[in-house]
Amino acid sequence: MKNYTKQEIVEFEKRYRTNFVNSLWGFKSVNLVGTISAEGFTNLAIFSQVVHLGASPALVGLIVRPAETDRHTYTYMKEVGDFTLNHLHKDIIRQGHQTSARYAKGRSEFEATGLSPIWSDEIKSPYVKESRMRIGCKYVDEMTIKQNGTILVVGSVEEVWVDEEAVQKDGFINLESIGTITCSNLDSYHETKKLTRLSYAKPDQPLTEL
Amino acid sequence: MKNYTKQEIVEFEKRYRTNFVNSLWGFKSVNLVGTISAEGFTNLAIFSQVVHLGASPALVGLIVRPAETDRHTYTYMKEVGDFTLNHLHKDIIRQGHQTSARYAKGRSEFEATGLSPIWSDEIKSPYVKESRMRIGCKYVDEMTIKQNGTILVVGSVEEVWVDEEAVQKDGFINLESIGTITCSNLDSYHETKKLTRLSYAKPDQPLTEL
Repeated sequence: MKNYTKQEIVEFEKRYRTNFVNSLWGFKSVNLVGTISAEGFTNLAIFSQVVHLGASPALVGLIVRPAETDRHTYTYMKEVGDFTLNHLHKDIIRQGHQTSARYAKGRSEFEATGLSPIWSDEIKSPYVKESRMRIGCKYVDEMTIKQNGTILVVGSVEEVWVDEEAVQKDGFINLESIGTITCSNLDSYHETKKLTRLSYAKPDQPLTEL
Repeated sequence: MKNYTKQEIVEFEKRYRTNFVNSLWGFKSVNLVGTISAEGFTNLAIFSQVVHLGASPALVGLIVRPAETDRHTYTYMKEVGDFTLNHLHKDIIRQGHQTSARYAKGRSEFEATGLSPIWSDEIKSPYVKESRMRIGCKYVDEMTIKQNGTILVVGSVEEVWVDEEAVQKDGFINLESIGTITCSNLDSYHETKKLTRLSYAKPDQPLTEL
């Protein structure tokens, strides 16, 4: 195994370092975040920095970068108070990835990519019609990570839309059955194949497959 | 698609809700976190709540639950000041999952699961020898999410150990080549198959495959 020191990583060429460091954490969830401004401009952005914060109440964390050039998502979710998360699947990878282009304010990524907004009574922000798992969240709070100015947005789950067949008897959602994909780095998309699901672990007791 | 309201989710039976909500965010990275106490007790714990916070400097976030019964990982990383992240692959899924059992303090998950500690000069905490990607981090800071008492630990990357062949010319790390797997919910493990890697998106320009 090769050892990369902190100093070497700091001295990497910028683009190389971005790829390297973004690859370190393994495969990530990938969601399209839908928002709308107070004026009614819709926005859609691909996010791989989403993290589970709790099940009761159901809370999610979104990491928003401090770069100021394209923060429509962040601005709009604060303005209006909610946002949507929409899983990516095989057939909408290119449209999803294209939402990361820096469109001018007022130019909707829905229009630019051909993805369709769909609305719900609970949430003002648009969902992605093509997505097979959609989660409506309220903006609840935020915290700034002082080391680099990055923001953790805390959201609460207000509603979920998903194919009922995907929800198993114990509440587990079979993400493969709805084609949810995963990503690595900022640009590589992968489908998955289940290896195993294991029982709740207890000391000195054998695990069983669920 | 079926609609689940916030009220329905709140009223789910506890175990059902845990499965349902932990499934919402898609596939997640899965790492074994290695730590050591000031007294020299080693600890290993499986974590799916790891999030990229920045590339320059390289920062990672770990979500630590407020549940107090088993916080050896959190206690030790604060005590000693560092921790390791070790990717999971196919051959060590069962051992990795078994680390989530609630072992008494002083009983090392390394011993209990048969995974081997390996040491570096840079970091006091143990790495997992069987892992094919190992990241040494310093504990830098923490913030409490007041809505549920969950803690975001901020760590800085001090060194990386990885098969050199996995690191491509542009810094992208081919995680499939080192067998890194992904998880959904808290107990389901999946291998991946690359679908595509796409070029940097710009408005009104076609994407190309990398």
